[in-house]
Amino acid sequence: MLTPNPRLVFAKRPDVGILPVPGEHLVFDPSPSIDLDAVPLNGGFLTKTLMLAPEPFLRERMRDPSIPSYSTHAVLGAPVVGSVLVVVIRSEKEGVNIGDRMYGLSHWEAYTVQPYVEGRVDFKAGNYTEDLTIDLDTMGLGPVPDPKGAYPWSRYLGILGAPGLTAFCGLEAYGDAKKGETIYVSSGASGVGSVVIQLAKARGLRVIASAGSDAKIEYMRTLGADVAFNYRSTDVAGALKKHGPLDIYWDNVGGASVEAAIEHARPKARFIMCGSISEYNTEPHTWYGVKNMSTIWKKRIQIHGLFVGDHIPTLGPRFFAEVPALIAQGKMVGQESFTEGLETAAEVLVRLLQEGGGDDLGKPIVVVARE
Amino acid sequence: MLTPNPRLVFAKRPDVGILPVPGEHLVFDPSPSIDLDAVPLNGGFLTKTLMLAPEPFLRERMRDPSIPSYSTHAVLGAPVVGSVLVVVIRSEKEGVNIGDRMYGLSHWEAYTVQPYVEGRVDFKAGNYTEDLTIDLDTMGLGPVPDPKGAYPWSRYLGILGAPGLTAFCGLEAYGDAKKGETIYVSSGASGVGSVVIQLAKARGLRVIASAGSDAKIEYMRTLGADVAFNYRSTDVAGALKKHGPLDIYWDNVGGASVEAAIEHARPKARFIMCGSISEYNTEPHTWYGVKNMSTIWKKRIQIHGLFVGDHIPTLGPRFFAEVPALIAQGKMVGQESFTEGLETAAEVLVRLLQEGGGDDLGKPIVVVARE
Repeated sequence: MLTPNPRLVFAKRPDVGILPVPGEHLVFDPSPSIDLDAVPLNGGFLTKTLMLAPEPFLRERMRDPSIPSYSTHAVLGAPVVGSVLVVVIRSEKEGVNIGDRMYGLSHWEAYTVQPYVEGRVDFKAGNYTEDLTIDLDTMGLGPVPDPKGAYPWSRYLGILGAPGLTAFCGLEAYGDAKKGETIYVSSGASGVGSVVIQLAKARGLRVIASAGSDAKIEYMRTLGADVAFNYRSTDVAGALKKHGPLDIYWDNVGGASVEAAIEHARPKARFIMCGSISEYNTEPHTWYGVKNMSTIWKKRIQIHGLFVGDHIPTLGPRFFAEVPALIAQGKMVGQESFTEGLETAAEVLVRLLQEGGGDDLGKPIVVVARE
Repeated sequence: MLTPNPRLVFAKRPDVGILPVPGEHLVFDPSPSIDLDAVPLNGGFLTKTLMLAPEPFLRERMRDPSIPSYSTHAVLGAPVVGSVLVVVIRSEKEGVNIGDRMYGLSHWEAYTVQPYVEGRVDFKAGNYTEDLTIDLDTMGLGPVPDPKGAYPWSRYLGILGAPGLTAFCGLEAYGDAKKGETIYVSSGASGVGSVVIQLAKARGLRVIASAGSDAKIEYMRTLGADVAFNYRSTDVAGALKKHGPLDIYWDNVGGASVEAAIEHARPKARFIMCGSISEYNTEPHTWYGVKNMSTIWKKRIQIHGLFVGDHIPTLGPRFFAEVPALIAQGKMVGQESFTEGLETAAEVLVRLLQEGGGDDLGKPIVVVARE
């Protein structure tokens, strides 16, 4: 018996500097179907997608294949590959059982035979091509434990998923945080930023955070930010001059914010470069030119390009030992904002990629199916 | 009996973006004198300056005191404080004997009662003000051993002094050099650059180096550079595209070279930011804006602002254990270019600060006195 297996297809590459358009670059296709009982598993297992999380890194993968980046480019005509929470509904693989929940990267479709690509590896190990780019198409799923009511399953896509891991690994690997120091977090209301704020407070840091709406400013204050400002109404350099100097800068936005942070950094400051949302949808020739690069040596600033996959093998175990417990104890909080149905995924993603990252408070999650 | 004690005085701050002018900002003053036999030592010692080394960092110290930087600003009206090789001619200090040679930072004058500033510390330990800037006025001298003919004393101002230490500490602390990798060294014929090239070759790296004259290109080849190009006639980005990609970038120049190196870096490349000679004599609003900062996280590039003083306590002993032996065995070479007389120091310094760093091959040394 055939069951509908809708998917979100990566149909066309958006040009450099433009937002992808739902229905053009990202097309919801309701037509595929699958025989859940008879589809061959070939020693693998069959998963049902429960939730998925649109995330900024997906835009980078949509680039033209001639442009190098940290990740391999997305495959045209295939389903989007992104963060998912799935449940196992059939299995021929030892150690994988019906009812197991898994988090990681997989196809954005209702049901998937896993592994969906030959040669995939467990997502915790990372998988690099010979030029050191990351083949995200071959990264897979890892099991997640039942929270037994301590927190909702959706946390695994937010504070306990890639955003939380990114915040934890970046701060642990590069932050060298010392109690009483000051950190500035741009996009502090984002999936990653909201965890950086909380981890920074837990380590005794003074936190300056910025975002683009009054609701987000209030949200960042509830997360513990000591200073929260709206970059649309407040000059970033002026705010950092007033509230700085900085010992750590967590960069989610790029461009002029980096220049301002360099200007107002203390000697020996650490910068963690995580993203550049100010530039995802603009052409490179319009990108802001950072003029004060010489200040890097004058202040002995250390600037670290971060990719979480590099650190999960070493820091992931500590994350999973510490953060779920803090959440269960109420010492850290996750927050998600939900939309219903795979057909909403493209729109949620595009909203996230807009300048300002959209109005959603908390990590945007698309609910694909209830159990 | 009074002996002349000429000095080079820091007489006036040059405006931002201009070269200092000998006779205006840096004034040779032949009028002071000293009684070498009777001058009180107060438990210290009296040194005679043999050689001094004009170096680019001196320009940074001439800035307006309102501008923060890694070092304290130079004191107006006082002798310039810079790298020197001195010999002890009187001593009241235990462990310091007549005839001892010392290298480090001291006044640029013929004779100096040491310590010249209360609270100075041995130069190997570093000395930081509470805002983490380095008080170079309180850094002092350290003894250097007699090479007994294995190499000339002048090496202590070049490959065995600050330039050599800078190259060694930067590569060891941040380079993570692996055999077969590629490094690009800008200003490869400079005091620091020429040692970076040799150390990189000793570690099995492929070396791309640039400088601004044909004689320097040839000099860099003799030091072992695999690819040497003239940045005045060859586009840096084009050369790096052709001969890269880079695993390590040693930056002595700043500006557009940094952007080109980011563009042609391999994933996980390490950048060692040592100086910005392209910007020492130009106004900040004219500095090149680096537009590809987002590539830092896309390639997980690690950018390290370097100040050698941070690393001498940990890496200095290894340097002094390894490099003098390599020089004595002829496996590394130092080269200096000499001028005679303290009255030439200002001109040699200004030549070094010019775009291109002047035409001198090897480390410029001013001979102040023979024994």
